[in-house]
Amino acid sequence: MRKLKLDELNRLNLEDYKAAEKLPITVVLDNIRSAFNVGSIFRTCDGLGISKIILTGITARPPHKEINKAAIGATESVDWKYHPDIIEYVTSMVSDKSLILGVEQTDNSMMLDKLDLDIDGKHIYLLLGNEVEGLSDELLPYLDNAIEIEQYGTKHSFNVAVCAGMVMWELSKTMRSFQ
Amino acid sequence: MRKLKLDELNRLNLEDYKAAEKLPITVVLDNIRSAFNVGSIFRTCDGLGISKIILTGITARPPHKEINKAAIGATESVDWKYHPDIIEYVTSMVSDKSLILGVEQTDNSMMLDKLDLDIDGKHIYLLLGNEVEGLSDELLPYLDNAIEIEQYGTKHSFNVAVCAGMVMWELSKTMRSFQ
Repeated sequence: MRKLKLDELNRLNLEDYKAAEKLPITVVLDNIRSAFNVGSIFRTCDGLGISKIILTGITARPPHKEINKAAIGATESVDWKYHPDIIEYVTSMVSDKSLILGVEQTDNSMMLDKLDLDIDGKHIYLLLGNEVEGLSDELLPYLDNAIEIEQYGTKHSFNVAVCAGMVMWELSKTMRSFQ
Repeated sequence: MRKLKLDELNRLNLEDYKAAEKLPITVVLDNIRSAFNVGSIFRTCDGLGISKIILTGITARPPHKEINKAAIGATESVDWKYHPDIIEYVTSMVSDKSLILGVEQTDNSMMLDKLDLDIDGKHIYLLLGNEVEGLSDELLPYLDNAIEIEQYGTKHSFNVAVCAGMVMWELSKTMRSFQ
């Protein structure tokens, strides 16, 4: 066994990436102040081929030195946009083609290891809030589902970029096996 | 739908966590300089109920202000130890009960979405190297498998804490469904 060299990884260049088909997922980050986490999520979205990132509220946004450091270029590859108000954005996206998913611990969440979603022909909006407050209560009525990661430890949550990674990984695996 | 309150999350206290059965996984971090990433991995291990973390080489280690900030207490809950040399550590752990897995892009990797591991009765050692160098070449002969996350973007890798999260998530899901 030997490690692959950089040129053997066959990564896309920027132009080909822009033209490539993406997974129909838009990641929406609300009030995520940590530029490091935002940059890291950009990088995950690049790697998994996620369509778009929407930054809302006080979420850190490019151009930003610390986002760039963590994203190492993924702010150029992944399409993104800023919207001040997540409720306005999400309500404008609701249609019979949308599946609005919030990552949140609620009294009626779907566990990530038991996902049962009707994704056929849908575009997923995956909403993540900040680690302390989570998603705002006013957003909950617009969710088709809340998704929760079962936890076995002492802490109340995961780091938001890690949490986003685990949920995006599971969704992308489901959607790619479905394609 | 309503968000759960902190006391409804039913997290374990430190004493109960220490006594609880964990997943038979030891995460081994080699030469991971970023204290933020190390702290974040501690937090993921707490949440998923991973047995132990081994820090090797120049990996940042507690007590460390930035690890604490990212781990928010998980350095107290998750058992950990420092070993200077990952090769010495890994070779001392090889047995018919061990499954040594390295997260690495090689010419013979198992893709994370197609895991096919014989985990029955095994203890997994999950090795992660730093984002630039990866695992050292001398380590590769000791791996039972290299695990790789298929990527569709422009960057050569994920952030190490996100990558660790995705792999630990997939392994923990497999192991818990097996139990």
